[in-house]
Formats: sequence, C-alpha cells, structure tokens
Amino acid sequence: MTLHWTHQASDGRARAGVLHAAHGEVETPVFMPVGTAGTVKGMTADGVRSTGARIVLGNTYHLMLRPGAERVARLGGLHKMMDWHGPILTDSGGFQVMSLSGLRKMDEDGVTFASHVDGSKHRVTPERSIEIQHLLGSDITMCFDECTPFPATHEEAARSMRLSMRWAARSRTAFTPREGYGLFGIVQGSTYPDLRAESVAALTAIGFEGYAIGGLAVGEGQEAMFATLDVTTPLLPQTHARYLMGVGKPDDLLGAVRRGVDMFDCVIPTRSGRMGRAYTSRGPLNLRNAKHAEDLRPLDPDCDCPACRNHSRAYIHHLLKCDEMLGPILLSWHNIHYYQALMRRMRHAIQQGRFEDEAARIEADWSRPE
Amino acid sequence: MTLHWTHQASDGRARAGVLHAAHGEVETPVFMPVGTAGTVKGMTADGVRSTGARIVLGNTYHLMLRPGAERVARLGGLHKMMDWHGPILTDSGGFQVMSLSGLRKMDEDGVTFASHVDGSKHRVTPERSIEIQHLLGSDITMCFDECTPFPATHEEAARSMRLSMRWAARSRTAFTPREGYGLFGIVQGSTYPDLRAESVAALTAIGFEGYAIGGLAVGEGQEAMFATLDVTTPLLPQTHARYLMGVGKPDDLLGAVRRGVDMFDCVIPTRSGRMGRAYTSRGPLNLRNAKHAEDLRPLDPDCDCPACRNHSRAYIHHLLKCDEMLGPILLSWHNIHYYQALMRRMRHAIQQGRFEDEAARIEADWSRPE
Repeated sequence: MTLHWTHQASDGRARAGVLHAAHGEVETPVFMPVGTAGTVKGMTADGVRSTGARIVLGNTYHLMLRPGAERVARLGGLHKMMDWHGPILTDSGGFQVMSLSGLRKMDEDGVTFASHVDGSKHRVTPERSIEIQHLLGSDITMCFDECTPFPATHEEAARSMRLSMRWAARSRTAFTPREGYGLFGIVQGSTYPDLRAESVAALTAIGFEGYAIGGLAVGEGQEAMFATLDVTTPLLPQTHARYLMGVGKPDDLLGAVRRGVDMFDCVIPTRSGRMGRAYTSRGPLNLRNAKHAEDLRPLDPDCDCPACRNHSRAYIHHLLKCDEMLGPILLSWHNIHYYQALMRRMRHAIQQGRFEDEAARIEADWSRPE
Repeated sequence: MTLHWTHQASDGRARAGVLHAAHGEVETPVFMPVGTAGTVKGMTADGVRSTGARIVLGNTYHLMLRPGAERVARLGGLHKMMDWHGPILTDSGGFQVMSLSGLRKMDEDGVTFASHVDGSKHRVTPERSIEIQHLLGSDITMCFDECTPFPATHEEAARSMRLSMRWAARSRTAFTPREGYGLFGIVQGSTYPDLRAESVAALTAIGFEGYAIGGLAVGEGQEAMFATLDVTTPLLPQTHARYLMGVGKPDDLLGAVRRGVDMFDCVIPTRSGRMGRAYTSRGPLNLRNAKHAEDLRPLDPDCDCPACRNHSRAYIHHLLKCDEMLGPILLSWHNIHYYQALMRRMRHAIQQGRFEDEAARIEADWSRPE
C-alpha cells in the first residue's frame, strides 16, 4: 500500500491519526522540523530524535543545488546521508524558487532560475521535481506548484492556481507509486474561497495520498489564514492527511489543528532559536534581553529538554552575548522540543475528547505572567 | 588535603598518574578541552563528557569580561553555569591579556588593558587574578604571569621571567588553600635552559600543587619546544603534575608525554574543527577539499564518535560547503573525541610499560596512506 493516513479520533474539527510511511508511523497532528540542506540547523539527528520528532522535512531547492540530487542518491539517499531513519517529506522546490532564487522565468512547462548560491542556471518542471524527490528518497513527495504571491488579485490567483493544478496532474503522472511512499497535492487559490474550492475539486479529482494547503503564511496574517482554513479543510477528504505548509508560531498551530489540519512544518523554531528567541509554555522569551543576565530559572519550567534541564536563562543570555554557537544550539533544541511537546499535548487531548479544554489551558498559560 | 597528583607508573620519562581534585579524579596524561567563555565551542557539556573528557579549562580573561567574575559567582560558579561537574582549570588571564587585548600597560604591580570586546579598561594584578579564579570556582588556579613573547633576547626573557616569579610568590600568598583545590606555578624563561632552570628553582622554593610550563607554542617550533622540555621536565619535582600550556597538535602531545608532561590544553581540536579539519588516527584531513564530496567512509575508521558512527566524509564536506553549523559541531566533537582516545592510548601504554612501542605504532599510522 502506498503512504496513507488512518483516523483515530476527532474532537470538533480537530483530528488525531497515524501516518503510515515507508520509514515508520507518525502520529498526527505533527510538527515536522525543517532540515533544509540535509540538516536541522544546529542539531544532530540524535538531538532531533530526542525531542520526540518522528518526521523531518528536506528542501528540494537547496538539495538540488548542494550537494545535488544525483549526488544525494549516490550517497545512499537523504535518510542515510543525514542519519535520519524516520520518514522524510520533501517540498517540491516551488516555494524556494520564488522566494530565494534570482532571474526566474516561468512558462507553462516549468521554471528556469538562477541559483542563489553561485548564479548557475537551473530548470525545474513538475517531472524534474518529482524525479529529484525520488532521488532524495522522500517518503512524502510534494507536487511542483507555484506559490501564489500575496496579495494577488482574483484573476492572478486564479491563473496561478490553475497552472499549479495542471502541474499537479503532471506530478501525479510522473510519480511512481511504491509501498509506503506517497504524493501530496497542494491546494492554492490565495485567500479566495471560490478558488480554494476549485483547487480542492481539481486535486481530489486527480487523487493524492494527502493534501497540503499552500500559499499561506506569506503575509496574509493569522485572521485571513484561519478564514482560508475555515473554507478549505471542510472540503478536503476526511480520509486523508492535511498539511499546512510553512506554518507557524505556536498559536498558529493550535488554531490550525482546531480547524482540522494534521501536519505542519516551519523554520521558526530553529530560525528564532538562532536569533535568541525561545518559545515556552508561558509565551515567547527574547534571551538577548539584559533582564535575563542573572535569571537562574530555566527557559521553561514545564520543559525537560537539555537546555531547560541543565542551564539557566542567564547562561543562555551569556552565550548569545558572546556569539557562542552553544546559544543557538540550545535554543533550537529547546524550541523543537517545545513544539513537539505542544503537538503531543494536542494529540492526547483530541484522543481524549477534551481538545478545547486543553487549548484554553495552553492559551491561558501563554498569557500568564511568570 | 589540597589538590594533588599521585604517580601510578613511569615508562622512560613518560608518566601515568591521577590528579585528585575537588570535583573528581582525573587520570593523566590528560588533554583538557578549552571552554573559553564557559563553553567548549560548539559542544554541549554532555557532548564533551561523552568524549571521555574529565577536566576542562576556562579562560579568566574572557570570563572576567563576559559575564564577569562576580556574576559567575552569583550564578553559582563556573561548574554550575556551564553544567560541568568535573574539575575545571582556569588560566590566569596573563596570556590572553597579551594576545587579545589592546592598549596594555604593564608595571611591577600588574597590567592595565582595554577589553577586545568593548574597549573598556581593566586592571589585573596577581591578587585580582587569584580572586577572579576563586570567584569562578576553579579546581586548579594558575599563577598570574607574563607570557614572554617569542623571540626574546636572553635579557628580555630573564626580566620577564623574574617578574613572573615575583608575581608567582604574590599569587601563592593570595591563594587560600582549600580541600581539593590547588595553585600551579608557571615556569617561564623562553628557550634559554639557564632561565628555565632559574624559574624552576624559584617556583619549587615557593612550592605549588603543580607546575606548568608556559611560554611555549608561541612560534618557536616543535624542535625548540621539545628541546626546552628536555631541559625543564627533569628539573621538576617527580611528585607533582606537569602541565604544558596551550599545546598542541597530536604529535606535540605525543612528544611531550614522552618528555614527562602530564597535562595539556589547546584550542586546536575545536578551532580546527570549525575550519573543516579533522585529526584522525591516519593523520589530518581537510574536509573542505572537494575530494571528499562522494567519500562514504567515516572521518576515522578507528573512531566511535557520533560523527564517525553516523556520517560520511561526504556529508561533512556538504555541511561545510553550505556553512551549516552541524559541520563544525561534528568536527569539533570528533576532534575532542580523537584527542581523548589518543591520551587514553598513551596512558594505557605507560601503565603497561610499552609506551615507545605504542608511540611508534601511532606515528606509523599517522603517515600510513589510507
């Protein structure tokens, strides 16, 4: 059987389930740490595992440029290369081609762009994106799409979404089904309910192993994101996993789980960690702030990650002031650990039919003064 | 009893023994990873422990500037701050004042200098250096000295050494003996045998818990360093630990153990790791070199560190090319692990009376083509 998702429990629109992939099973709702270039930045694979993470994401755009998809394949695939034995999801490269590369030229067939690393010219089509993800060895392959810029007029959003739907059909054809591996379609349509509905209809008519919601977290704001989820998730098949791409902060995750999303990825926990920010059960902390200089408390009293077990806020503040690598290392570790704990808490609450109670408690803690 | 060293075995001039310190026992010969600003760069304390390291070094100069010695004391001392439960040795600040700070002014009483961080003015005397090290909580405190620049004329070296000897006497007076804590004197005298002998005599007349050999690894070259050890270690008490400061590369360690040195510290394993260099049982490797791009072998076939157990040279090469933190993290980890394994191998060989056989085997492996 190809990759699939099984439903365990629902509570309101929130769902708990299990993703069955070639490299293992993953309980949902789940947060996937981002291993952009074959590494979750600042962490060993053992460290990532220790947080409870069971699936990570790799970026097609970064890996096709360095070390190159064919090279990854010669090195035994992405799992072996980065020492990650669980499932891996790879994006299709579409988003990064738009956000990172230079000199893009898009046509019906695909995109030509210049590498942000060395300016070299590359071409990606739906077929090549699927081939690259196959070479990487991803459990979950994403359709190649255009991430519609925000804001977009209805006409622009429609044209962009319809191109992505044609590319989704080509991605489906290019993907070879294998036991435990799967292809996800990506719903586009910006913030327009009719376009989202049209996109869902187009994708479900093709049929995928899971459905992603793309084109959000691109500047539209949380309210518009939630409104778009409100009109999109009810249209998606109850039987398949739903993945909100590139989201988000802890309160984004909570609101999206509430709206029926099962899977998330985001660079926020690691990127914010490198900037000195910790996400905690009592809300975010900026560890660069001088007020932490002699604070002997852990980052989060409710966390048992190595940063919280072994070190004070004062120490982490000191490390950041000195630009010591250990500061970002500990904060990235803590943030990934916190995200995993948050998702686990939501999963258990859904399984026990008390999601809204737990959500209210989590939200109250975020705003509770320490 | 204050900190002391007990002799276990000798083989030629090489010695094996045990350092008895407040925070634990340490077998010698030993390599101490450098935790400059309260962190061995790029490693968690758990990671450092996992290499077999049992004692680390902290830098008075860095810690007095950030976060400040009084602040470290308020945070519970350096052990607690950096989560290192074993012994800690702190240098006196003398070497870094000379090598890092700006606008120095030295007089008989001490040194005034400008911080390399923010230009702020600081004054260190032997008494203040001992006080700072006490505030940090070091098991092993070093006398405040002037690291004689190299090259120095006989007259310059003599004047500098004699100042350090007067400061050593003042350091001894300022140090309060406590159970398990100790003060080491530092032999100076550049590469002049008569000055080294005069310095040893001055220090042993005062009496210390251990004796360091300073002013080497400052550009004199390995031959001159070994020649200086040849005329210095035979003069030092057989009953006390000997510490060669700031040394070195693997072959420096081997040659110095052969000449009766017990303790070492150096930034080379971590600094080289950040630059892409691995020290291995088959000699050094530059992982930035393109020849490693598809090399599936581990860094070192004889090493069981996480970098060697879980990853290929190709992956580490890729991480370095992408400026990913994990490259320096894995290489620092490997190098510290390799240094610990090398010291353990030398210790066991001394204990078993086969040091020269083992040394010959180690040296042959370093030059053996892979």
